[in-house]
Amino acid sequence: MSLPRIAIDAMGGDEGVRVMIDGAALARRRHDRFKFLLVGDETRIKSALESHPNLRASSEILHTEGVISGEEKPSQALRRAKGTSMGKAIEAVKLGHAGAAVSAGNTGALMAIAKLSLRTMPGIDRPALAALLPTLGDNDVVMLDLGANTECDSRNLVQFAVMGAAYARVATGREQPRVRLLNIGSEEIKGTDEVRDAVAILRGAASDLSMSFDGFTEADKICRGEVDVVVTDGFSGNVALKAVEGTARFVADLLKRGFSSSLRSKIGFLISRPATELLKHHLDPNNHNGAVFLGLNGIVVKSHGSANAAGVANAVAVTARLLEENVTERITADLARLGGSTLRMPRVQEESA
Amino acid sequence: MSLPRIAIDAMGGDEGVRVMIDGAALARRRHDRFKFLLVGDETRIKSALESHPNLRASSEILHTEGVISGEEKPSQALRRAKGTSMGKAIEAVKLGHAGAAVSAGNTGALMAIAKLSLRTMPGIDRPALAALLPTLGDNDVVMLDLGANTECDSRNLVQFAVMGAAYARVATGREQPRVRLLNIGSEEIKGTDEVRDAVAILRGAASDLSMSFDGFTEADKICRGEVDVVVTDGFSGNVALKAVEGTARFVADLLKRGFSSSLRSKIGFLISRPATELLKHHLDPNNHNGAVFLGLNGIVVKSHGSANAAGVANAVAVTARLLEENVTERITADLARLGGSTLRMPRVQEESA
Repeated sequence: MSLPRIAIDAMGGDEGVRVMIDGAALARRRHDRFKFLLVGDETRIKSALESHPNLRASSEILHTEGVISGEEKPSQALRRAKGTSMGKAIEAVKLGHAGAAVSAGNTGALMAIAKLSLRTMPGIDRPALAALLPTLGDNDVVMLDLGANTECDSRNLVQFAVMGAAYARVATGREQPRVRLLNIGSEEIKGTDEVRDAVAILRGAASDLSMSFDGFTEADKICRGEVDVVVTDGFSGNVALKAVEGTARFVADLLKRGFSSSLRSKIGFLISRPATELLKHHLDPNNHNGAVFLGLNGIVVKSHGSANAAGVANAVAVTARLLEENVTERITADLARLGGSTLRMPRVQEESA
Repeated sequence: MSLPRIAIDAMGGDEGVRVMIDGAALARRRHDRFKFLLVGDETRIKSALESHPNLRASSEILHTEGVISGEEKPSQALRRAKGTSMGKAIEAVKLGHAGAAVSAGNTGALMAIAKLSLRTMPGIDRPALAALLPTLGDNDVVMLDLGANTECDSRNLVQFAVMGAAYARVATGREQPRVRLLNIGSEEIKGTDEVRDAVAILRGAASDLSMSFDGFTEADKICRGEVDVVVTDGFSGNVALKAVEGTARFVADLLKRGFSSSLRSKIGFLISRPATELLKHHLDPNNHNGAVFLGLNGIVVKSHGSANAAGVANAVAVTARLLEENVTERITADLARLGGSTLRMPRVQEESA
């Protein structure tokens, strides 16, 4: 079975065209079935392709002049999307010329353009941004939403749980991913009305869902490897994600400071290098690169703006796995299984409020 | 000048009476002006005091039978507070028999009892829980609220900023602490209405406040040492705090795993031990123990349930500093300087909504 093509916005990201093309080439070297639509400035793409004849052979170039900048507001980006590499990459998904799009550009703009062009899936009110984080366990953990929706009701959170579970099945291989809602205590009385309503709905529907749902988790447990999906609103999710990233960097900086504080420590550092390299590898954001917009009629993956070629290759590999496993269809099937009655609950509450 | 007494709830915490008494003794050894009111089971307190004659000489014991358990709901704890060590320690502050209370017991119960007994300060709508976190800079950072209020309006956030700044002046010695609001982006268009309104009010009042206010910060910057106070609602604050704690432990666990992965790494670990000890010391929660309930008519400090004697001593030292520096009066003065007009703003919005 041949895989649908992957559209690459070659112009996004801080590192320029070359890192996107190098990344695509690296991903293709590992999985030679991948085919690409490279969107952006034709001259620069061709120049970057010179060192990658195999990628060149399995790619088509779609020339565009415009580029969405990192500072552009989503509303402004929406207006000029048509003539830009980001807009064209997403349009290719909409028209069926590609199965998915990958961009390292402006996240807000990408989200806005993808939402307007691809529209949300039937049964989903709002798409969410999901990413993989490292854990002490055997697999990464999926966390969502990471900032697409600053405020969420219980209905949104339940839909995020379904989408997160579908993604985790692809990412971890577990048929019944362990799903939890993020809260500020594990008791059911804690937290906002939204999380308490969501936990009640998910508990009620648990037997129909392809997930193992077990209530709340707290932010200190995200990376313990005991959970496969952490569900939360976009504000808390963004705070948690950045706190994890910032603290990992903080501890690494402290360690660096410690290791360079004396000759003895420097020598110890050189000897124990394999240990610290292991840590570095485990925490390197490039190894977890590729955040996914879930809930749209099509797959859109955000590569980190500062990712290197290995990071871009990871984002492309994530995209390919989502295509191979038909994640969008899996979400549709799960939503159907959830049934209308359970999901309508919070809406009734809203009306009576 | 003699310092008011500090009431110690000797029965709270996972580690029992002895760790609270050992901690108080340790704090007293460093600062011999401290005087204590030790509240709890007299027999067990006396037994723990046997090895601390100096502490015994500067303490009075207030016998109580009841103890609030860790699992007790705040509503239930409130009803039986009168006969418990936690309730009596707080009552001592209310009656002026002590200047402050320290407890390692149930946080929710402590908050509820303290709020009902001491009442919020004039000008403060809701008290907040604040703690110190380690940074790469010269001083710790104050973060609040950490879970006392799951949902906050802009008026609450502005008051938290004023209280956090007063605490940071005591904790860091800076006359104009650098205050920021936690958000999911640094641009003023990001985030919820509450944080955007709060930033507008604080910007408008900046020249009247004893703080250096500079808009938003993100959760990955909390520990960089560039900010002295991070202000947020109790849900996000709790998520951020626990994500920081969990990630620090996660990285330490990974490092331990790396160091024990081979003989070479084990040898390197032994040689570079001073470096890792430095890290351990920096991240040890006992060195940052002592979360403060700000905004009440009296000082109440929460020691971590699992803190050791050194941790309890830190919480006692924090309490003493807050007493010495009259933090409650400083907050009153700052609120007065803020003026009624600015703080009334969000209330007007609420009425028109």
